[in-house]
Amino acid sequence: MNKDDKILIIGAGLCGSLLALRLAQRGYKIELFESRPDLRKVDISAGRSINLALSDRGLKGLELCGVVEKAKSICIPMLGRQMHDVKGNTFDSKYSGREGEYINSISRGDLNAILLDEVDSHENVNIHFNKKCIDVDLDETRIQFYDYKTKKEFSVIGDVIFGADGAGSILRKHYISERKFLFSYSQNYLTHGYKELEIPADENGKNQLSKGHLHIWPRGDFMLIALPNMDGSFTVTLFLSYDEGEYSFANLTSEEKITEFFEKEFPDALALIPNIKEEFLNNPTGFLGTVKCSPWSYQNKTLLIGDASHAIVPFYGQGMNASFEDVYVFDGILNMGLNTWQEVFKAFEKERKKDTDAIADLAVDNFHEMKDHVANPLFKEKRKIEMDLEEHFPEEYFSKYAMVTFKEDIPYSEAMKKGRAQDKALLNLIADDEINTHLRMSKDELKQILKTIKEETNEILQEDKIAGL
Amino acid sequence: MNKDDKILIIGAGLCGSLLALRLAQRGYKIELFESRPDLRKVDISAGRSINLALSDRGLKGLELCGVVEKAKSICIPMLGRQMHDVKGNTFDSKYSGREGEYINSISRGDLNAILLDEVDSHENVNIHFNKKCIDVDLDETRIQFYDYKTKKEFSVIGDVIFGADGAGSILRKHYISERKFLFSYSQNYLTHGYKELEIPADENGKNQLSKGHLHIWPRGDFMLIALPNMDGSFTVTLFLSYDEGEYSFANLTSEEKITEFFEKEFPDALALIPNIKEEFLNNPTGFLGTVKCSPWSYQNKTLLIGDASHAIVPFYGQGMNASFEDVYVFDGILNMGLNTWQEVFKAFEKERKKDTDAIADLAVDNFHEMKDHVANPLFKEKRKIEMDLEEHFPEEYFSKYAMVTFKEDIPYSEAMKKGRAQDKALLNLIADDEINTHLRMSKDELKQILKTIKEETNEILQEDKIAGL
Repeated sequence: MNKDDKILIIGAGLCGSLLALRLAQRGYKIELFESRPDLRKVDISAGRSINLALSDRGLKGLELCGVVEKAKSICIPMLGRQMHDVKGNTFDSKYSGREGEYINSISRGDLNAILLDEVDSHENVNIHFNKKCIDVDLDETRIQFYDYKTKKEFSVIGDVIFGADGAGSILRKHYISERKFLFSYSQNYLTHGYKELEIPADENGKNQLSKGHLHIWPRGDFMLIALPNMDGSFTVTLFLSYDEGEYSFANLTSEEKITEFFEKEFPDALALIPNIKEEFLNNPTGFLGTVKCSPWSYQNKTLLIGDASHAIVPFYGQGMNASFEDVYVFDGILNMGLNTWQEVFKAFEKERKKDTDAIADLAVDNFHEMKDHVANPLFKEKRKIEMDLEEHFPEEYFSKYAMVTFKEDIPYSEAMKKGRAQDKALLNLIADDEINTHLRMSKDELKQILKTIKEETNEILQEDKIAGL
Repeated sequence: MNKDDKILIIGAGLCGSLLALRLAQRGYKIELFESRPDLRKVDISAGRSINLALSDRGLKGLELCGVVEKAKSICIPMLGRQMHDVKGNTFDSKYSGREGEYINSISRGDLNAILLDEVDSHENVNIHFNKKCIDVDLDETRIQFYDYKTKKEFSVIGDVIFGADGAGSILRKHYISERKFLFSYSQNYLTHGYKELEIPADENGKNQLSKGHLHIWPRGDFMLIALPNMDGSFTVTLFLSYDEGEYSFANLTSEEKITEFFEKEFPDALALIPNIKEEFLNNPTGFLGTVKCSPWSYQNKTLLIGDASHAIVPFYGQGMNASFEDVYVFDGILNMGLNTWQEVFKAFEKERKKDTDAIADLAVDNFHEMKDHVANPLFKEKRKIEMDLEEHFPEEYFSKYAMVTFKEDIPYSEAMKKGRAQDKALLNLIADDEINTHLRMSKDELKQILKTIKEETNEILQEDKIAGL
């Protein structure tokens, strides 16, 4: 591998753009291909604002590439969740008891535009829009493209190909279909799909819900969430079963039924979504899937990165963050001074896969927790104790959520392992009345609780280790 | 659904044959298709004896269909494992401390022949050999076949199609490729492959290893196993990494290296495998994969069953048993008096999938335990205590292995959950010196140990439940 290698990147979405930027900064020559038009020139949002949660792991990747300040300029901090019950009552739950720990709502399109602008400032990168990857020859490192403008096909040969082409990756499909090696692969869908709706700003351009929260309407079998946009609007997402239960995407097919459902379950939200019927009937129903695979690379020729290698469900708000952290970790591997792309690719997967597997599993767990457990008294009490501990012992206690979201120096796999053990310890201590909690606990009482939790957590980890788990 | 429905079954292997037999016994009209020749007339073993482990779940399925006695007549009981160390010392480990709990080595071909003979005795089944399924139209329930004899293609339309076409199922591939529904799917390969070898009978036709054991040469990173055949020979299987470690399939490519490897690691086995070099170089290297998927069925038209829906690795000796149990469970669903094939298919998957997922996971666990943990002193002590408990409290204590293998009335998923908790309890009690074991324990001492294990196991299960695991 050397700086004259011609690097082809498929996909100029969030991951492909940041990867191109970092490799350009390191002096590589890059051809970056994107099937869609340049989103800085053409509105490809189909009228909808798509926002994502940006947190510390994502910021770490952006910082590496010197774009963190630009990104922060379009961030909307969300300090916690605001839960809405069927009567319209709200209940706030902060993401952390520590100061300065929050997640951000950010526009996918605007962030992508920032990254593309940065990429454009490097002469050693060429971006090619409207070029759809339709075929890959793995051994020849050749990609066949269809040009939506000229309506013609053409092919490009490089020294190495990065597939940053998302959850539906064409490169990954070639790993499966060409059977050049044993390719472990899984695609797992949730029984629920999703539908995006919009709460517009009010007539004065002001937000109609609190802007500093991620809003959740948890209803057990389904839920609604809303994230703020810069213009005062909120992007609302309904997560609902395809075909099970009293209400499902299968039976919400008439205006009457849709209104009935929202009036019964989400009356406060319904009042704020003026175009609910049109949006519900016209917006597509999306699916929610997890993709895992291995190996990510083929010889010294190709590598999958970002969603292409590990698509996850959105319930931990970590999809984009995991992809940006991929770039950060990959950059670290490049610093090791290995000799070949093959060594780099293998070292990257070895370092990274356990962590992307972990966040994939955590995200599915959180789906169930968000729609269900947030209403569970045991979980509420746990959350309260954790806030108190984080507030009074900010250097000593980190909830699972905090480790995953704010401790970007801990790998996902470690955050999962320790966080799960800690959750188990805490839930059992509460259930067994072994820690006594009341409204205003003294710092000494909290210190004793912290000690007990730490002991129990370590015991759980030790017992799992002896059992070979 | 009614008895006049034309049922097409793809695959007359072990699962397809037993399914055809049971449906024939229930009065259905069946066309059974098999890509290979009739193994009762043509030797398709390529010179190798393939044997499998038959145990209680498989016997339960055979009994349902009235063929258990015929199967037992070709069984070779294996009472336990016999471990071989590098010096040729052996160490026996029984499968159960109870009387009459053992597994059987059985010839795949001979058992399949018994099933085909039974199927042939029913006028409402037609078996078609040499008919390779090459395409399936899901909506039309039409199968396209290639006839190896006439070299022509033809198609058959039925009312319902069962895909009993094994781990590489064509029907399953159509579920993936046609994208008519969200199909969750995983294929996961182990880093190890396998190679079959043979220990022939001696010149007097006698077995050269103990016939009543499954033999294991555990070596940490790899292992050799051997199962007895009726003719006095043993089928030996080497499980070895494809390309990692000092020895791997990638570097065992010369006669010298193969000999060096076996001389160093398996000298006693080497002395009994006369054709090792030819067999090693000429026999294919097989891969070890787990397949899970969902849904198994499409509308009221098609169902995957057996390995087609849940291929597992062989390390729990449960592959065939799980498939036969599928037929048993499916028969139970048919007894429920549901109205449509769609209801039957959905009820079957709902009842069964958690269990086939469980045995898939247990089989991977056992891969690591067999090659590794059997040499671990903690595991050895656990095994000894379990044997004592099963011997003295046969109605009260069942090891995980016993629950999976001999308690055919407990679903796999329950055996896994309880068995794992029990293993964890026992290993931790031993590691913490909380149960005192010595050579000859009194029944009272054992009774106290049993009580402690039960309490700890229940606590583990309770704690997991509270944590939502």
